[in-house]
Amino acid sequence: MKIAVDAMGGDFAPEAIVEGVMMAAAALPEGVTIVLIGKQSVVQELVNKHKTETVSNVELVNADDVIEMSEHPTKALSQKPNSSIGVGFKLLKDAQVQAFCSAGNTGAMHVGALFSIKAIEGVLRPCIAGFVPQITGGHAVMLDIGANADCKPEMLCQFGEIGSIYAQYTFGIERPRVALMNIGSEEQKGSLVAQAAHQLLKDSRRINFVGNIEGGDFFAGKTDVIVTDGFTGNTMFKLGESFHSIATQRGLSDEFIDKTNYESVGGSPILGVNGNVIIAHGISSPLAIKNMIGLAIRQVESDAYTKIAQVLA
Amino acid sequence: MKIAVDAMGGDFAPEAIVEGVMMAAAALPEGVTIVLIGKQSVVQELVNKHKTETVSNVELVNADDVIEMSEHPTKALSQKPNSSIGVGFKLLKDAQVQAFCSAGNTGAMHVGALFSIKAIEGVLRPCIAGFVPQITGGHAVMLDIGANADCKPEMLCQFGEIGSIYAQYTFGIERPRVALMNIGSEEQKGSLVAQAAHQLLKDSRRINFVGNIEGGDFFAGKTDVIVTDGFTGNTMFKLGESFHSIATQRGLSDEFIDKTNYESVGGSPILGVNGNVIIAHGISSPLAIKNMIGLAIRQVESDAYTKIAQVLA
Repeated sequence: MKIAVDAMGGDFAPEAIVEGVMMAAAALPEGVTIVLIGKQSVVQELVNKHKTETVSNVELVNADDVIEMSEHPTKALSQKPNSSIGVGFKLLKDAQVQAFCSAGNTGAMHVGALFSIKAIEGVLRPCIAGFVPQITGGHAVMLDIGANADCKPEMLCQFGEIGSIYAQYTFGIERPRVALMNIGSEEQKGSLVAQAAHQLLKDSRRINFVGNIEGGDFFAGKTDVIVTDGFTGNTMFKLGESFHSIATQRGLSDEFIDKTNYESVGGSPILGVNGNVIIAHGISSPLAIKNMIGLAIRQVESDAYTKIAQVLA
Repeated sequence: MKIAVDAMGGDFAPEAIVEGVMMAAAALPEGVTIVLIGKQSVVQELVNKHKTETVSNVELVNADDVIEMSEHPTKALSQKPNSSIGVGFKLLKDAQVQAFCSAGNTGAMHVGALFSIKAIEGVLRPCIAGFVPQITGGHAVMLDIGANADCKPEMLCQFGEIGSIYAQYTFGIERPRVALMNIGSEEQKGSLVAQAAHQLLKDSRRINFVGNIEGGDFFAGKTDVIVTDGFTGNTMFKLGESFHSIATQRGLSDEFIDKTNYESVGGSPILGVNGNVIIAHGISSPLAIKNMIGLAIRQVESDAYTKIAQVLA
């Protein structure tokens, strides 16, 4: 198994990325290799700086260019095919690697996935999934947390189906509960899109729909999959992540609140595409990168995207 | 000054409501009276149970009917004019009281306000405002937190103007900062409505628009007014309130996190109507009711709705 990681993407790249990769490399399962993509001279130097002994599970692939955070995604990808992101998607598309992860330009990662490995046939719109720690243990999969700010009801229903398959195969939950984030428990509550989505989710034979949940249920352990549009998802998810920083500012330390820290999961997968693509926060620390790689490995092992393709075909 | 309180609305009414009223009564400013509306026999008994000495600042007004939490708002109001909510709005409309508060059927409170005291001329849609504690001190006014699940950009711009006036007169902030909740800092980020609202807010001469904020900035002290649609507002606001319950479940206690507890402010005003109307959570405790009454008094003193009417006329 090869996990490709963009060494050049992120506010603290390449240093933080390489450090995180080396942390992961020290504890990688047998048979797993990390492929670091970036300006080889720079990356090699950083790898040398962090390795304690001869590292055999980290490979370097050169990429001369870098897509900056502020660049327009589509333009940048077409103008910079030799960017670390461009090269990463080429490797993924050519099945040279089984996953590609980056803390770089999110738009470029999303567009790059659509152009290279493409959306799964039948998927209306790929989305980004986040993992929300539940007070009862484990995580709920929340989607969409940012790819699609405006959604049609059919997209939301599909997020429910995709999220359910992901939770089943990646988390091992037999019959994942799927809930719709809303502003009341009744069916007729919420925006027009939410009301229509509620009916579609209710009628879907592919999921175990448990109805609406509200903002206060975010961490409550009432569901395994939280369906919402990308605007609501992004604002809520980031608010949830701030719990940890608020607690830290107040000098509080707690095992559960620590799980709301973005570092603890490390990355968010793009779901609904023909491959494993994981994006991480621009501010990603080495620990976040390390955990993102762990997520990538689990996702490759689960082969979730193949299962999603089978169901939606 | 007379503050009317619905004794019959809420999951723990009338006991919790009367207890909260009596707590408030023990510390009311000179010249303020609370008018308790409900089934007089029941309410009188509860008042007697809680009073320690002769109470001169609580009056009772009879209302034979009750609008239940699950009833359809418009139907219930027209069929039950003698409900505690119906009577409350009549008193408010007739200027017998200067504010009306209830933990009962929110839809009925909203519709009742529109029917009785009506929307301020020029207001597209009244909204509900919530107070979000800021880590830097004080609160930000967030609107809309639930009245309008689907919003047009013009409504969002108006929420910004209404919130700014409210913050100026009720919180005493000279030139309130107004921000748009969004999923990125750039102007072109977000849903179509958010993008259009951003431009309108930017162009408004009535406000000090500081641009977009993101979910992680919710408590951060970056703004005095947070503008959003009722769906995003409701889900985020309830998620923010859950911080306190999560902390409590984890055995943590902190002065700032305590402020995220719904009880600490106690109520949410309906803004954009010709009068002071405050709604409280159905689950309101006596402490929440007490604090809601304090908010009502401050709001009456600030005369915010008159100022809003003047600006928007």
